[in-house]
Amino acid sequence: MSEERQEMASKQQINTELLMEALYSEKIDDFRAEFLELHPYDQAAFFGELKDEERAKVYNFLSPEEMADLFENLESDEEDFKDVLAQMNPNYAADMLSNMYADDAVDVLNELDKDQVVSYLTIMNEEAAQEIKDLLHYEEYTAGSIMTTEFIAISANQTVRSAMYILKKEAPQAETIYYIFVVDEDKRLAGVISLRDLIVSDDETMIGEVMNDRVVSVSVGEDQEEVARMMRDYNFLALPVVDFQNHLLGIITVDDIMDVMEEEASDDYSKLAGIADLDTIDRNPLTAAKKRLPWLIILLFLGMFTASLIGRFEDTLDKVAILAIFIPLIAGMAGNTGTQALAVAVRGIATGDLEKESKWNIILREAGTGLITGAVCGILITFVVYFWKGELFLGALVGISIFITLIIATLAGSLVPLLMHRLKIDPAVASGPFITTINDIISILIYFGIATAFMSYLTK
Amino acid sequence: MSEERQEMASKQQINTELLMEALYSEKIDDFRAEFLELHPYDQAAFFGELKDEERAKVYNFLSPEEMADLFENLESDEEDFKDVLAQMNPNYAADMLSNMYADDAVDVLNELDKDQVVSYLTIMNEEAAQEIKDLLHYEEYTAGSIMTTEFIAISANQTVRSAMYILKKEAPQAETIYYIFVVDEDKRLAGVISLRDLIVSDDETMIGEVMNDRVVSVSVGEDQEEVARMMRDYNFLALPVVDFQNHLLGIITVDDIMDVMEEEASDDYSKLAGIADLDTIDRNPLTAAKKRLPWLIILLFLGMFTASLIGRFEDTLDKVAILAIFIPLIAGMAGNTGTQALAVAVRGIATGDLEKESKWNIILREAGTGLITGAVCGILITFVVYFWKGELFLGALVGISIFITLIIATLAGSLVPLLMHRLKIDPAVASGPFITTINDIISILIYFGIATAFMSYLTK
Repeated sequence: MSEERQEMASKQQINTELLMEALYSEKIDDFRAEFLELHPYDQAAFFGELKDEERAKVYNFLSPEEMADLFENLESDEEDFKDVLAQMNPNYAADMLSNMYADDAVDVLNELDKDQVVSYLTIMNEEAAQEIKDLLHYEEYTAGSIMTTEFIAISANQTVRSAMYILKKEAPQAETIYYIFVVDEDKRLAGVISLRDLIVSDDETMIGEVMNDRVVSVSVGEDQEEVARMMRDYNFLALPVVDFQNHLLGIITVDDIMDVMEEEASDDYSKLAGIADLDTIDRNPLTAAKKRLPWLIILLFLGMFTASLIGRFEDTLDKVAILAIFIPLIAGMAGNTGTQALAVAVRGIATGDLEKESKWNIILREAGTGLITGAVCGILITFVVYFWKGELFLGALVGISIFITLIIATLAGSLVPLLMHRLKIDPAVASGPFITTINDIISILIYFGIATAFMSYLTK
Repeated sequence: MSEERQEMASKQQINTELLMEALYSEKIDDFRAEFLELHPYDQAAFFGELKDEERAKVYNFLSPEEMADLFENLESDEEDFKDVLAQMNPNYAADMLSNMYADDAVDVLNELDKDQVVSYLTIMNEEAAQEIKDLLHYEEYTAGSIMTTEFIAISANQTVRSAMYILKKEAPQAETIYYIFVVDEDKRLAGVISLRDLIVSDDETMIGEVMNDRVVSVSVGEDQEEVARMMRDYNFLALPVVDFQNHLLGIITVDDIMDVMEEEASDDYSKLAGIADLDTIDRNPLTAAKKRLPWLIILLFLGMFTASLIGRFEDTLDKVAILAIFIPLIAGMAGNTGTQALAVAVRGIATGDLEKESKWNIILREAGTGLITGAVCGILITFVVYFWKGELFLGALVGISIFITLIIATLAGSLVPLLMHRLKIDPAVASGPFITTINDIISILIYFGIATAFMSYLTK
C-alpha cells in the first residue's frame, strides 16, 4: 500500500444496502460511483462478506487495476487467496497482480502453489513479473521480504527543480514520495532527502547540497523485528534496504512496519499462551481445537512424567497424605515465577534492551530477584501454614521448598530464552506452558525430595 | 516528534570517544559539529549514558531548542524527567519545554508534581504554555492525550498555490506536512488533502475541488488502541481528532501510534504473564522483585485456598494416596487450556474481531472447542493410565476429570475476559495467572469430587 490512497479517506459507514442493490440489479454505474469512493480497506471489508457469485459480479464491475487496490487490503488470515484467485479469469487475475504493489503481490503469490505462481508470472506484465521474481526469493521475516522496489531514486548531481519533476512523474507508482533516495552511478545509496526539505529548498540548489548523507539503512537479510525497532526509534516513514555493497535494493514503508509490529506482538503473545497462530478468529470449534491440541497433548505427556515422578514418592505420600495438598501451590508458584521471568527475558530480547547487558549481569540479577521473591514468599507461607495447621515443621518444609523453587524457576525462566537467543532460536518458542511444566517438575522434585529426607520429623 | 527530523538520518555508530573528549576539553565547536549531525534518537542515547556533571556541560553546549530535539527522544522509562529537569536552570528548562512539540512536552510534564508544572508553565513562552494546558486535561490513553495541536489547517476556498505557500511557511512548526486538513469558517473538519495530491495538482485549482471530503476522524475521547487499529487498517500517516461537533482539535501522527502499539502489546503481554509493567528493564533485583511480588503473593493466597480445598478431601487422599500424583497433571491442563482461551479472547477483543460476533456464537464455539479438546485429551489419558498402571478405573477417573475440566476451563478462559469487556474493564486484567489459578481450583474440585463419589471402586 502507498500513501497514494491513504488520503482517500472514507465515511466509516459503508452503504451496504445501496451497494448490494446495485450489484444485484446490475447497475454498474451506481455501484462504481459508491464503491470507488470508499477507502480500499472498506472496499476489502465489503468484498470479504460477499458470496462467490456476488464476487463474480464485482470482477465484472471493476477493472483489474481497481481490483488491485482492493486486493492489497484483503487480509491473508481471513481469505484463502488461492480460492479467490481461482474464481477469477486468469488474465484478469494476472492483470490485477501486475497492478498491485510488488510487495503485496508477493504476499499473495506466497500463498499459492509453485506451479500456479509460475503460470501467473508468465501471463503477467513483464516488468511487474520481474519485480516480483526479484522479491520472491528473499527469506520470510527478513527486510527483503517486506520491502518494495517501487521507490524514487535520484542523483546528487541534479537540481531540486529536476528532482521535483521526477517526483511528480513517478508519484502514481511510487510507494512513498515523502522520502527520495539519492544513489551514485553504481546505484549505491548515497543520501536521502525528504519532500519536506525539498519543497522548502531553492529550485536551483543541487541535491548533493541539501541531501543528508548520513542515511540509516538496513541490510536485506535483517530481521523484520529489528527493522520495526529502528523505524520506531528513529520515527522514520521509510527505510532504505541495501545489499552488502550498499546497493539500494528497495524501501520499507511505515504502513508495512505497523503490520509487522502487530504480527510480532501477536506471535509472542500466542507463544506465551501456548497456542499456535492467534491471528485468525476461528468460526469453527474444530479448527480452534486443532490449534490448541498440539500443546495440550505435549503437556499431557509432560504431565504424565510429572505424575510418574510423584509416583516415586508414593511411600512418602502414603505416610503423610497431607503433603499432597500443597502440590498445586508449589507447582503453581514455580510456574508463575517462571512465566514472569520468561516474559521479562522475551520482551527484553525483543526490545533489544538485553543485548546491551552482559550475560553474567543478567544471571546475577535474576538470581537476586529469585532470592528476594523466594525469601518473601517462603517466609510468608511458613507462617501461614503454621497458624493454619499449627505445624511449624510442615510450614518450614513448604516455605523452604518455595524458596528454593522460586530461585531455580526464575533462573530457568530467564536463562532458557537467553540461551535460545544465543543459539539463534526464536526465544518465544520457549513458550509459557513449556517453562511452566518444566518448573512444575523441578518444584515437585524439590518438595518431595526435602520431605522424604526429613520424613522422620513429619511423621513423629 | 515530526518528520522534520526524521530524515536527519545518522550514522548508526555514535563516535562516543570524540564526543567525550570534546566535552571534557570544553571544545564546544567540535562537540556541536559532531553531536548535531546525529539523529536526535542517537543524541538521546548518548545523553542517557552521561553522568550528572557531564550533562551539565551538555546544557552549556546546546541551546534550549537543540536540547528540545534531544529531549523528545528521551525514554520516560529510562529517565526520571523530574531529576533531569531539576538539574537544569529553570529558564533553560522552560525554554526547552516551549520548543518541544506540545504532545512530547505534555509527556514530560505528566511526570512532574503539580506545583512544578505550574511553575514551568508560568515562565514558559505563553503560546506554548497555552497549547500544553489545552492538552494536559485529556484523560490518559485517549486520542486527546496523544494528539498534537501543531497541524496545518487551510480553507477550501483557497488555491493550491496559496496552500503550498502556507505549507512552506508552517513546515518548521508542524508535526506533519504530508496531510493538510481543510476546515470551514467554524473550524469544523471539512476535508483532507495530501501533499502528494497537492504537488501534482495545478497551481490555480481550488482546494475544495481536489480535497477529499470523506475524511476519517477520531473523537477526542476515543481509546488510543482503537486509534492505532484505524491507523493500521487504513494505512494513514496522520489522523484528525475532533470534538463532538466535528471541530478539529488536533492530529495524531503515525510515529506516536507506533509507540502506542508497542505499549499496548507490552501491556497485554505483561498481563498474560502476571507481571506489572514490562516496559523497563530493571538493573536492580530489588525493583524487579517488587514488580513480580504482588501477583506472586496473591497467587500464594489463592494457592492456600486450593490447598485447603484439597485438605477437605484428606480422607479420600489417605485411603488412595495414588490420587495425588495426578493433581499437577489435571491442574496444569486446566490452567493451560484456560490461558489459551483467554489469549484468544483478549486478542479477539484487541483486534476487534470478536465485536462482530454474537455472544452466543462465541459461547457455543468455545464450548465446542472445549468438548473436542476435552474428549481427545480425556480418552488419551485414560488409555495411558490404563497401560501404565493397569488400572482402568483410575484411568477413567482421570480421563473424565480432564474432559469436564477442559470444557469448563475453556469456557472460563473466554467468558471472563468477554464479561469484563462488556463491563468496560480492560479484559487483559484477567491475567494468565489469575485464570490459571481459578481453573486449578475448579479442576481439583471436579477431580476429588468424582474420586470421592466413586471411592468404593477405587479402594476395592
